[in-house]
Amino acid sequence: VASDRADNVDDTTGFTPLVDNPFAHQTIGKRTPCLVVDKITADRNIAVMADANPGTRLRPHVKAFKSTALARRLSDAGHQGFTCATLAEVEGMMRAGLGHDLLLANQTLDADHLSRIVELDGRLTVAVDSSETIAAATAGRVTEVLIDVFVGMPRCGCPPDEAGALATQARAAGLTVRGVMGYEGHLMMIEDRWRQAEQVAAAMEDLTRAAEDVGGEIISAGGTGTYDLHTEATEIQAGSYVLMDTDYLSLGLPFDLALWVEATIISVNHHQGWLVADAGLKAMAMDHGNPTWPFGDVWFCSDEHTTLSPNGDLDRDWRVGDRVRLAPAHVDPTVAKHERMWVVADEGVVDEWPVDLRFW
Amino acid sequence: VASDRADNVDDTTGFTPLVDNPFAHQTIGKRTPCLVVDKITADRNIAVMADANPGTRLRPHVKAFKSTALARRLSDAGHQGFTCATLAEVEGMMRAGLGHDLLLANQTLDADHLSRIVELDGRLTVAVDSSETIAAATAGRVTEVLIDVFVGMPRCGCPPDEAGALATQARAAGLTVRGVMGYEGHLMMIEDRWRQAEQVAAAMEDLTRAAEDVGGEIISAGGTGTYDLHTEATEIQAGSYVLMDTDYLSLGLPFDLALWVEATIISVNHHQGWLVADAGLKAMAMDHGNPTWPFGDVWFCSDEHTTLSPNGDLDRDWRVGDRVRLAPAHVDPTVAKHERMWVVADEGVVDEWPVDLRFW
Repeated sequence: VASDRADNVDDTTGFTPLVDNPFAHQTIGKRTPCLVVDKITADRNIAVMADANPGTRLRPHVKAFKSTALARRLSDAGHQGFTCATLAEVEGMMRAGLGHDLLLANQTLDADHLSRIVELDGRLTVAVDSSETIAAATAGRVTEVLIDVFVGMPRCGCPPDEAGALATQARAAGLTVRGVMGYEGHLMMIEDRWRQAEQVAAAMEDLTRAAEDVGGEIISAGGTGTYDLHTEATEIQAGSYVLMDTDYLSLGLPFDLALWVEATIISVNHHQGWLVADAGLKAMAMDHGNPTWPFGDVWFCSDEHTTLSPNGDLDRDWRVGDRVRLAPAHVDPTVAKHERMWVVADEGVVDEWPVDLRFW
Repeated sequence: VASDRADNVDDTTGFTPLVDNPFAHQTIGKRTPCLVVDKITADRNIAVMADANPGTRLRPHVKAFKSTALARRLSDAGHQGFTCATLAEVEGMMRAGLGHDLLLANQTLDADHLSRIVELDGRLTVAVDSSETIAAATAGRVTEVLIDVFVGMPRCGCPPDEAGALATQARAAGLTVRGVMGYEGHLMMIEDRWRQAEQVAAAMEDLTRAAEDVGGEIISAGGTGTYDLHTEATEIQAGSYVLMDTDYLSLGLPFDLALWVEATIISVNHHQGWLVADAGLKAMAMDHGNPTWPFGDVWFCSDEHTTLSPNGDLDRDWRVGDRVRLAPAHVDPTVAKHERMWVVADEGVVDEWPVDLRFW
């Protein structure tokens, strides 16, 4: 089974560079399954992004990593405003002293939770796209909002030509309207960068037209896949670029994979050649497909296992007790499955980042 | 968009009965997203299974629900032995006083964690399928093992004809060998029950042959999909039947859906007819596909959102703030994403079950 799949891996995944990544060979010896972060790569990703979008030009999205320890590194790198997807993220960031300028880039009806969060130290701006979310912001004693505008992805956001009226309504309710946001999530994974740039520009035409109607100084948009394609946005909401995943890796962006799931080989079928690793569906998100293993095929994942077929013959002699590293396909929901990330550099484990912004 | 998809839902999902489920209409008013358990249905599922596999004939698998509160209900229903997939589950069950007879139906190399668990009150039997896992059990001061036998699913388990030799090796190491286990997971989802029964019987021929070589009194096998097809096994390892999911529901077993994810509609696109619910990839496992919504199509899930297209025209008038319930496709990894389940009966929320057996 193993040998006739040897040539198959690179064809199907296209991640040949992963094999050459020295990080894929290491082990940290912690209880498995666990998340490991390659600190050197993560720091390089942070530096590359800070060069392209320095300071407040980037509003890092914490939903991608859900860790105040990692957010603090981004703050130290000059990005003091953050984007959040949940009120738990907002609350956790404020409690960690990282609430200098938080944007909830999502709709909420939970006035009760909002009213408790605004008691904390920090500045919160909430996205609104309807009368109901404006009412919730007001009831929750929020003072600042952005108008969330639909720019082509079928999710939240008011139609662009209704943004001005919503802003008027928000101001009538006593809210300060800081500007607009529009997330072009449907354009993140376009591989042809020329076509991607064209479509981002078209989406941003809608957003800037809405911004003119709305007023305010913020035009918030973008993500890791379009981090360098924005001319009209005043800030970019990227988060995945720090740790990355195999899905984003396939775009050829200047960010490298810094996140792996380390697992232990707990069973080897010597007759038919497969290996069983102790990381499965509960350790890795599957919405973007299987994880990638640099040294062979991933057959399938079950709750607590991944069955692997190694490249080449069994002369490599994989043994029970060996450690392997799997590269997740989607970073955000993978990280959310864990309590912590182990941060690794040449000298071994150098830090532990709690995943402290989980749940809602 | 909505109207031309109206007829599509039942064709693609086959879950017409979900629409008639009164539970799908309710709301509990808790912070969303959250898990809700229909207590009456869960209790009925427990009773149906206890009737088919009473007492120790069932060794419920806690990996499906990861809650000692729910495990206690099963213990009260007569099942005092439990199956676990992780050492965290074993440890949590022992600490909750539910460690009367626990089977770790999985391989582990973590002698350190084992040696701390065996200090707790309870009885632990560990599955082994190699010299290495026997050595780990011994080093971890475990005293009882089962030989895990491969019965057709490419995962753990020694070849059937090597089981006897492994048992001899385990006994030589001072371990008591209580018997064998073999999980026919590849046969769970066969819809033709006649064919399923035939294939289970064939797989169990391998297991009973191994059992003769191994000795001991236990032949542990099965799951929710094959709960009534075993003649040779002394105990069945089912767990999903209590809460169920849409994947298992499609088999037409006598267990009904008792688990939903409740979400709030946070945005409505009145022009094009879609709704956005605040439960996404971080609240629902996607490895078995999208969740099911009884009142329309699920378009796609993103980290914290699900975009829905309601059946029929918009006369139904879905509004921002409405609650919806989504039926997960795979129960085990969905529950593992949450801190708690709200237990609901006619009179509203009657209990809270912490999901206290998460992580590793």
